[in-house]
Amino acid sequence: MSGNTLGLLFTVTTFGESHGPAIGAVVDGCPPGMTLSEADIQADLDRRKPGTSRHVTQRKEEDKVEILSGVFEGKTTGAPIGLLIRNTDQRSQDYGDILQTFRPGHADYAYHYKYGFRDPRGGGRSSARLTAPVVAAAAIAKKWLKEHYGTEFYGYMGQLGEIEVPFQDKKHIAENPFFAANSEIIPQLEGYMDELRKAGDSCGARIEVRASNVPIGLGEPLFDKLDADIAHAMMGINAVKGVEIGAGFKSVSQRGSVHGDDLHPDGFASNNSGGTLGGISSGQELRVAIAIKPTSSIMTPKHSVDIKGQPITVQTKGRHDPCVGIRATPIAEAMLALVLMDHALRHRAQCGDVELAVPPIPASRPGSQLD
Amino acid sequence: MSGNTLGLLFTVTTFGESHGPAIGAVVDGCPPGMTLSEADIQADLDRRKPGTSRHVTQRKEEDKVEILSGVFEGKTTGAPIGLLIRNTDQRSQDYGDILQTFRPGHADYAYHYKYGFRDPRGGGRSSARLTAPVVAAAAIAKKWLKEHYGTEFYGYMGQLGEIEVPFQDKKHIAENPFFAANSEIIPQLEGYMDELRKAGDSCGARIEVRASNVPIGLGEPLFDKLDADIAHAMMGINAVKGVEIGAGFKSVSQRGSVHGDDLHPDGFASNNSGGTLGGISSGQELRVAIAIKPTSSIMTPKHSVDIKGQPITVQTKGRHDPCVGIRATPIAEAMLALVLMDHALRHRAQCGDVELAVPPIPASRPGSQLD
Amino acid sequence: MSGNTLGLLFTVTTFGESHGPAIGAVVDGCPPGMTLSEADIQADLDRRKPGTSRHVTQRKEEDKVEILSGVFEGKTTGAPIGLLIRNTDQRSQDYGDILQTFRPGHADYAYHYKYGFRDPRGGGRSSARLTAPVVAAAAIAKKWLKEHYGTEFYGYMGQLGEIEVPFQDKKHIAENPFFAANSEIIPQLEGYMDELRKAGDSCGARIEVRASNVPIGLGEPLFDKLDADIAHAMMGINAVKGVEIGAGFKSVSQRGSVHGDDLHPDGFASNNSGGTLGGISSGQELRVAIAIKPTSSIMTPKHSVDIKGQPITVQTKGRHDPCVGIRATPIAEAMLALVLMDHALRHRAQCGDVELAVPPIPASRPGSQLD
Amino acid sequence: MSGNTLGLLFTVTTFGESHGPAIGAVVDGCPPGMTLSEADIQADLDRRKPGTSRHVTQRKEEDKVEILSGVFEGKTTGAPIGLLIRNTDQRSQDYGDILQTFRPGHADYAYHYKYGFRDPRGGGRSSARLTAPVVAAAAIAKKWLKEHYGTEFYGYMGQLGEIEVPFQDKKHIAENPFFAANSEIIPQLEGYMDELRKAGDSCGARIEVRASNVPIGLGEPLFDKLDADIAHAMMGINAVKGVEIGAGFKSVSQRGSVHGDDLHPDGFASNNSGGTLGGISSGQELRVAIAIKPTSSIMTPKHSVDIKGQPITVQTKGRHDPCVGIRATPIAEAMLALVLMDHALRHRAQCGDVELAVPPIPASRPGSQLD
Repeated sequence: MSGNTLGLLFTVTTFGESHGPAIGAVVDGCPPGMTLSEADIQADLDRRKPGTSRHVTQRKEEDKVEILSGVFEGKTTGAPIGLLIRNTDQRSQDYGDILQTFRPGHADYAYHYKYGFRDPRGGGRSSARLTAPVVAAAAIAKKWLKEHYGTEFYGYMGQLGEIEVPFQDKKHIAENPFFAANSEIIPQLEGYMDELRKAGDSCGARIEVRASNVPIGLGEPLFDKLDADIAHAMMGINAVKGVEIGAGFKSVSQRGSVHGDDLHPDGFASNNSGGTLGGISSGQELRVAIAIKPTSSIMTPKHSVDIKGQPITVQTKGRHDPCVGIRATPIAEAMLALVLMDHALRHRAQCGDVELAVPPIPASRPGSQLD
Repeated sequence: MSGNTLGLLFTVTTFGESHGPAIGAVVDGCPPGMTLSEADIQADLDRRKPGTSRHVTQRKEEDKVEILSGVFEGKTTGAPIGLLIRNTDQRSQDYGDILQTFRPGHADYAYHYKYGFRDPRGGGRSSARLTAPVVAAAAIAKKWLKEHYGTEFYGYMGQLGEIEVPFQDKKHIAENPFFAANSEIIPQLEGYMDELRKAGDSCGARIEVRASNVPIGLGEPLFDKLDADIAHAMMGINAVKGVEIGAGFKSVSQRGSVHGDDLHPDGFASNNSGGTLGGISSGQELRVAIAIKPTSSIMTPKHSVDIKGQPITVQTKGRHDPCVGIRATPIAEAMLALVLMDHALRHRAQCGDVELAVPPIPASRPGSQLD
Repeated sequence: MSGNTLGLLFTVTTFGESHGPAIGAVVDGCPPGMTLSEADIQADLDRRKPGTSRHVTQRKEEDKVEILSGVFEGKTTGAPIGLLIRNTDQRSQDYGDILQTFRPGHADYAYHYKYGFRDPRGGGRSSARLTAPVVAAAAIAKKWLKEHYGTEFYGYMGQLGEIEVPFQDKKHIAENPFFAANSEIIPQLEGYMDELRKAGDSCGARIEVRASNVPIGLGEPLFDKLDADIAHAMMGINAVKGVEIGAGFKSVSQRGSVHGDDLHPDGFASNNSGGTLGGISSGQELRVAIAIKPTSSIMTPKHSVDIKGQPITVQTKGRHDPCVGIRATPIAEAMLALVLMDHALRHRAQCGDVELAVPPIPASRPGSQLD
Repeated sequence: MSGNTLGLLFTVTTFGESHGPAIGAVVDGCPPGMTLSEADIQADLDRRKPGTSRHVTQRKEEDKVEILSGVFEGKTTGAPIGLLIRNTDQRSQDYGDILQTFRPGHADYAYHYKYGFRDPRGGGRSSARLTAPVVAAAAIAKKWLKEHYGTEFYGYMGQLGEIEVPFQDKKHIAENPFFAANSEIIPQLEGYMDELRKAGDSCGARIEVRASNVPIGLGEPLFDKLDADIAHAMMGINAVKGVEIGAGFKSVSQRGSVHGDDLHPDGFASNNSGGTLGGISSGQELRVAIAIKPTSSIMTPKHSVDIKGQPITVQTKGRHDPCVGIRATPIAEAMLALVLMDHALRHRAQCGDVELAVPPIPASRPGSQLD
């Protein structure tokens, strides 16, 4: 199937461009009988939407979702769920210049040579705006996983540019525009962003995502390991340059005697695995981290060439996100939810329905989740 | 399609277990008319095979591949290519004990609860032995990519446990059992491995993979970005816990003014992107890094439980790899080749045949590849 | 991928229900650079739309399509093409009764037991209205195939109930509401339909579809033969109960000496194969026939049961098609076009781009097409 | 996925050529825990194998299957099941001549122009020999369906050339080499075949296939209707030119008042639908018919051309099947079983596990199956 569909059984097919009339998704394979309304979806969309603080793009989009199909009298019918979000704040008058140039770090160059030309309006299909339908689709997955397994998702910023953001408490995440699980570091982050904006520059971010109450047994050997499909989904988010599961790159310098998570009758003693063993969920908390590169659209002039290969200087004007990572947390959660949902269905196809298989030992040990 | 098939158009479906009668793969979608013989495949298999140095598993396997189909008078016909490798050194007499226990860090626990029971002989399906058919299949992809685009692959060890392995020269890679691109560090690596083995412990590794002469335009928005499919393939390799493209996690603390690779009439000035822009190959060298966790089978006793949840102590006896990362380089190359091959076919399906589209500017600038 | 997507590379994912707010499709994998506007699509939609004669459903739908994405400055960009058709004539007030009963021959019974309940409004997802997005999507495929290979499609009614409709001339097809390639039989067909309507009954139809200038080489052994994928697509149309390629069921009683189409330097002498050999297009005219069952919604009372299994009598009131086959011709053409388009892309993925491979002998011989 | 894989969740990937070293299949997605041995598979293979009567090809093949993987201690593990059948009776010495010519009705012409050349040995990939791995794979599906739902399959010859073969009793099918459910017609069929062989000609056949105890609810709207996937699978069998479900082409001339199967508290009153409603199984007996064309390899000379387009005469020498339809019954059963198995898993993925959902009314009424 083509590149705009995610998943094998719970599939999300998106369409739309940044400055076209609308964006949206078709969600197929949703189990029937689940209550669903626009309100269930809107909450997550609102967490992602632009313009919520001065640190992100000032584009004004309500991101109001319309369910076009797949729901009857408030319940999913098993038919595909059409989701539509109209674009309202397109400003595409003056892209003519952009069409002739390649902005360093942007998709321009690759799109141009792949397709022969490109839609330059706000990045077209390569815009981060296209994560909105993904977040909308994932809200459906989250609801089902919550109802069936009690699965819960949360994400938070682990690092903003050079500043590490220590995890204090989950409750802080919703209290600030950075999705920081930390109540004291916000002024420092705000100062950092203001300085960046003044310098006409941008920075990257590290986002952490977690899922708890994940059923044991999700993921398929060999190629479609749960972590492999998570890596695929995460690396599919705009600007992501790295993905880690559990100890990630730290495991390179760990000894085996340290890395392997001991098992005790009351659960795993640690979580270096990040919740997967042999590519299959172990019931422990799933732990994923992603690296997001600094925004390419900056006010600082950069060397580039035009489509004829002639040297030019490129400098972004107008609104932009100095750190796309700030709004990435709900997107990363969404991707994780979509992968789990797809694998929950794949698992019950092959192995039958299970309501969170509970082994003689609990999957997690008190206090083992945050080592 | 189920989890044992990789790719959409150039598909590799593997089968087999560590200690079953045979392992193998069916490679479908190969373009017709390419000369192919067992010899083309055997070379890569030999680079991966066990028992080549004292630092890896001492299992004796010839890994001799037989082509069962898809080739007529030395040429691929377009029909699926069946590849068969007989297992010869199975020692599965005494697995009874293993069946009752979960080895920390192993797939045992997850397989047991997913499938209800498991094949314990040498790890069954979760054994790293199953990378052999992948390497065999990828040899076909490499050959085609080389003939069509001049694409070349190489990988090397970037770090062994705590020891960084500086890149000196590609030519050294084949001169030592570590795939180190460095001629001086070998004694240090050997000493480190000997010490680990004495300590009954294991370590992780960081592997770097590169592809040059990659056509511009490979990769599909949105979900099947080239880097997304690379991440999927790499995370599907046993023991991989992290994947990076280009600057990877370093991009978190980079400024946009630094990260974005400038373009000049003679090529890109740097390669922080790792060869993809917007998920599409830019023609620059592809750069991927993976983190491999330390081997779970160690001589050091670990706490665990048996399948009834009772506490036990687990200690591996007999042959094992103290660092599975040592043999991972050809496997990582193989995965990269399979992803590129699949996307080369996907690209020409949608956009027509191209023989390495050459833009007015060359994709790489003299000296820009190793910054 | 789930059941609402057709195709591997040129994929059509539809959504919507008969009486929901909208129906539509996402068309992914379209080659870039083709001029496309709503007008290109509307023509085929208009041929399919209801209410065009007194012999079909009187539902009033404009079936006006909106392109939501994938086109920039009048050209396809390679991004997914979102197509939206708003429903305007929904009359869903009084379905309460239908929800409790199973109409004989309808999907009610199967949907109810598959999903646990169903959307009863106008048949919900099982309505023939859902062929509109398919026709819209196929208009894109037809345009591309025409431009690249000169491929042309036409279909016609071969039989209406008990009345065979002899083929006279292609030009007549557009001159009557039955898609009959015959100018003299129309009064007889009209009389037959009027009589049926008076009797409160319905009838089936046999539709013939043809494609000419089909490139040689489309179709993939083993399972995805061109004819296999055509059969899949055709049998996916509502009410279709049979599919034939070429001589079809007549080939059962043919001798091999008669059935096998002789080859001469000026082309094939006959076309019993229907344009495929070994599941691959031979360049001859593609010939497909489908059987459409009589409409299940009839004014004649039928025995049935309610959802509790109690006996009831079911009798349709209000508007309905006495022969859904009358409007099926453009739908069958659409399905054929989608399959050819998908296989055209699949072929050039594996075998490279070909502009209608021309063998030393022409694929068709003068006069051989209509034997 | 490429064309040599059937199914979405229960996937069968075949490889091999008629005269290569081996043929085989990888069966992926099989539920774990089912007992399975070669003996379970061999029985169906033996029903299909050549050389069992004087009316079929005299090629001597034992068709002995080896299970290479996916089974541990006699039970399926959930890992892919590798199946291998060595070819033993290849006679490929003198194909040189065939390579230069196109045999009318054969795949030669299409393969040649698709791939640029072809494997001529016994038809290569296009040989009916490749149905052996399909039959082997389907034996696994049949076993699982039988154990879970009590599903049973049988097929029989409905017509041989011009001779209709009336259905008398299922028990006769295994008593004659024609799979005729009729004990009296056998001498007539044998005489017909002897005459054909003397005439150097061949004939077609009509095969009927049935499945009973099919769970309600299998099949997916819109495109992957159960009947659509059945049509795809059946048309994928060599030499099949037509597929019917239930009343098939007879439904064209049926009135709606006759065609629609009445429902009564004790079941359906008839079975014109053939066991599907809206593309979803209704629990009634599944009824499929296929048309098989006469064998193309005949002793009668036919006009053709060589690969340079020059006129030639083609005449088959040596062993051949004068009616490939004679051995097609177990193949058609196999295809039906594979489709049902795949949809059984797809259904429980989306809708949860069901052990043959039993509605308040039974799916079939006493005596309704053979109307």
